[in-house]
Amino acid sequence: MKRPDGTRGTARPATAARQSPTHPSSFTKMWHDLRPIGRNADTGGYRRYAWTGADADCRTWFQEQAEARGLTYETDRNGNQWAWLGDPAAGDAVVTGSHLDSVPDGGAFDGPLGVVSSFAALDELRARGAEFTRPLALTNFGDEEGARFGLACVGSRLTAGRLTREAAYELRDADGVTLPQAMERAGYDPEAIGPDPERLARVGAFVELHVEQGRALDLSGDPVGIASAIWPHGRWRFDFRGEANHAGTTRLVDRRDPMLSYAETVLAARREAELAGALATFGKIAVEPNGVNAIPSLVRGWLDSRAADQDTLDTVVTAIEKAAREYAEAHGIDLDVVRESFTPVVEFQHALRDEMGEILRERTGGTLPVLGTGAGHDAGILSESIPTAMLFVRNPTGVSHSPAEHADEDDCLAGVRALADVLEGLACR
Amino acid sequence: MKRPDGTRGTARPATAARQSPTHPSSFTKMWHDLRPIGRNADTGGYRRYAWTGADADCRTWFQEQAEARGLTYETDRNGNQWAWLGDPAAGDAVVTGSHLDSVPDGGAFDGPLGVVSSFAALDELRARGAEFTRPLALTNFGDEEGARFGLACVGSRLTAGRLTREAAYELRDADGVTLPQAMERAGYDPEAIGPDPERLARVGAFVELHVEQGRALDLSGDPVGIASAIWPHGRWRFDFRGEANHAGTTRLVDRRDPMLSYAETVLAARREAELAGALATFGKIAVEPNGVNAIPSLVRGWLDSRAADQDTLDTVVTAIEKAAREYAEAHGIDLDVVRESFTPVVEFQHALRDEMGEILRERTGGTLPVLGTGAGHDAGILSESIPTAMLFVRNPTGVSHSPAEHADEDDCLAGVRALADVLEGLACR
Repeated sequence: MKRPDGTRGTARPATAARQSPTHPSSFTKMWHDLRPIGRNADTGGYRRYAWTGADADCRTWFQEQAEARGLTYETDRNGNQWAWLGDPAAGDAVVTGSHLDSVPDGGAFDGPLGVVSSFAALDELRARGAEFTRPLALTNFGDEEGARFGLACVGSRLTAGRLTREAAYELRDADGVTLPQAMERAGYDPEAIGPDPERLARVGAFVELHVEQGRALDLSGDPVGIASAIWPHGRWRFDFRGEANHAGTTRLVDRRDPMLSYAETVLAARREAELAGALATFGKIAVEPNGVNAIPSLVRGWLDSRAADQDTLDTVVTAIEKAAREYAEAHGIDLDVVRESFTPVVEFQHALRDEMGEILRERTGGTLPVLGTGAGHDAGILSESIPTAMLFVRNPTGVSHSPAEHADEDDCLAGVRALADVLEGLACR
Repeated sequence: MKRPDGTRGTARPATAARQSPTHPSSFTKMWHDLRPIGRNADTGGYRRYAWTGADADCRTWFQEQAEARGLTYETDRNGNQWAWLGDPAAGDAVVTGSHLDSVPDGGAFDGPLGVVSSFAALDELRARGAEFTRPLALTNFGDEEGARFGLACVGSRLTAGRLTREAAYELRDADGVTLPQAMERAGYDPEAIGPDPERLARVGAFVELHVEQGRALDLSGDPVGIASAIWPHGRWRFDFRGEANHAGTTRLVDRRDPMLSYAETVLAARREAELAGALATFGKIAVEPNGVNAIPSLVRGWLDSRAADQDTLDTVVTAIEKAAREYAEAHGIDLDVVRESFTPVVEFQHALRDEMGEILRERTGGTLPVLGTGAGHDAGILSESIPTAMLFVRNPTGVSHSPAEHADEDDCLAGVRALADVLEGLACR
């Protein structure tokens, strides 16, 4: 894989053009157009799940933005969208983008801020009169949140060869629709999906801008920061199986109620995470038969756990599973624990990160904070194959994956300027 | 309301006819025909929810059984099905039946055993050459389990005036379909629903046969028993509202995670029920947004609680709610507790119960055990308006509301004979 020339950005002298203020109109208009798509009127949250109508509307919006700017639009074999300025075959491309899908009732910023900022940064660079020496591509990676099929970053995983075609074909949504069926219904050819090393070989650097999903920038007082690493994280499914029975007639001593072991495990997860300084969450549950007057036969809970390092994460998850097994045994419950996904720690490439820091320091005169994150991203998936980096935009409350997720417009525009600076430093004469 | 003549049954001398064995063929054929309707192939459980296609198939089966026996078939204003032998307008009718709908993945017996046994008991009485002196009706009460709209015994509640038309119109299923919409789609006129005192005034006694939902008969070694009372019971909805947030980036101290208070409350419910010798169950849950990597904004849990007397039930539910409020406050969670339904203790009418016992003692030479139950029934709802009684058939495992719910065929046929004896004693010359 090619790496960006570490000196190209910093060697370039400052010019008046790059100091022109970002025009908010481009960003604001795009934000306005994208805002209603897939928004639930009751909750105000977004339901942009992969290969649904809301997702299709987001994709149409992306294509229109690309075409309006005279970019070469294409989708790759895994349904990720690309908008090219310059010749993709030339290689060493600088790529920026994020995703447009959402978690259930997610916020407006997680994903879309990076995609909108990519187009806005290009507008900014054109306003500056920038001349590109490397191909530039803007991207929308499909199914980043995994809200529908339960696996995050499906589009980037497939492209990077970190999800096999066979495993992808087994993915099913809650209605039993498989991923290939969903893609086909959305007008994509599921026969094509699979690793795409040729495409990745053309990319010299991938930069993803994202709203911060914590309060580090708010606490440090910076509108924009640079990512250092993504914590290792994973999802574990806990299936507690007991015996369905009538809640009104079954004596307590005769019960095998899996809800009890589940509840104890939820509390154990919190305790263990606190002890280790890690994160552990049971946020998704499925109960069978889920009747008011029925003792459940099955309580299925999903554990999301993350920590700053692998050892800590292993310690926490092992302790939670051990506790769960003890609780299950005490209640006559059968327990299966399945690791559904796992992502090791991602250290973003130091050379690219340092180069970005240098470019931004030169242009803004300040040093951006460097921060880690517990959230997974396409940039993390791609970082094994190509040099990747991330910019974070301040989130004043830290709230994300919620309708209350927010970033101030001034900070968003600062993010656009920083992204434009980085792209200019990496890709322009 | 009329009451049955307390001496009619016992005064009648035994005859050879009533000793004829029940022919299993009638029962077995009906059981066989009804068995596949609404049965889920994966779980083996039944999904016969009110006003669905499976419910319609059950209703068609009922009508066909009625017509095959030359009974006068009708539905009442609330969609309950009636099959009449004799003139309904004559009054003082003896009515028997149960329901055909199910809980999610319920068993084959809860409800259908009573309906099938009603037809089989009529067949038995005809084989005995019984002559009826009172009108007889067989019934299928609609929506007993409340699986779809969350309220049990909707059909009998409406007829008995214990659910107002206005409140019934507000009932919605999980997809937002209202009860009147569902009835209309099923071909019933929702304009008609409401109390039906004229109909109830024609009923002199209602007897419901039901599979036992506990192990009392198994422990006493009796195939059939008589109900004494239904425990007071109710459903309470606990809405724990916190703040949706990203499970991978939100520090534990910044969280308002309602799953924790829910889990603590589940365990408190078990503790309090154990202390008081009562029952308390959280068997149904709804989580928003229910994403693996999202801290929930809402965890809604339903408490089902029952006890042998009102004071004990009050004590248990008050203690659970108090504990839940403490947990919620500790986690910054808003808690609303709503009592969704409540049924006070039902003591079945002693005169009818004693008369049934006398009839059966005279015919079988033995004394049937008399037992209480924690489960609600249409017979309990109707008991405020008319004399009602119940027969229970042995359940060797006590399991119900589960695909594993079972009764031996010999016991079912003993139940049919007992029901036929009771109907003969009450309604025949």
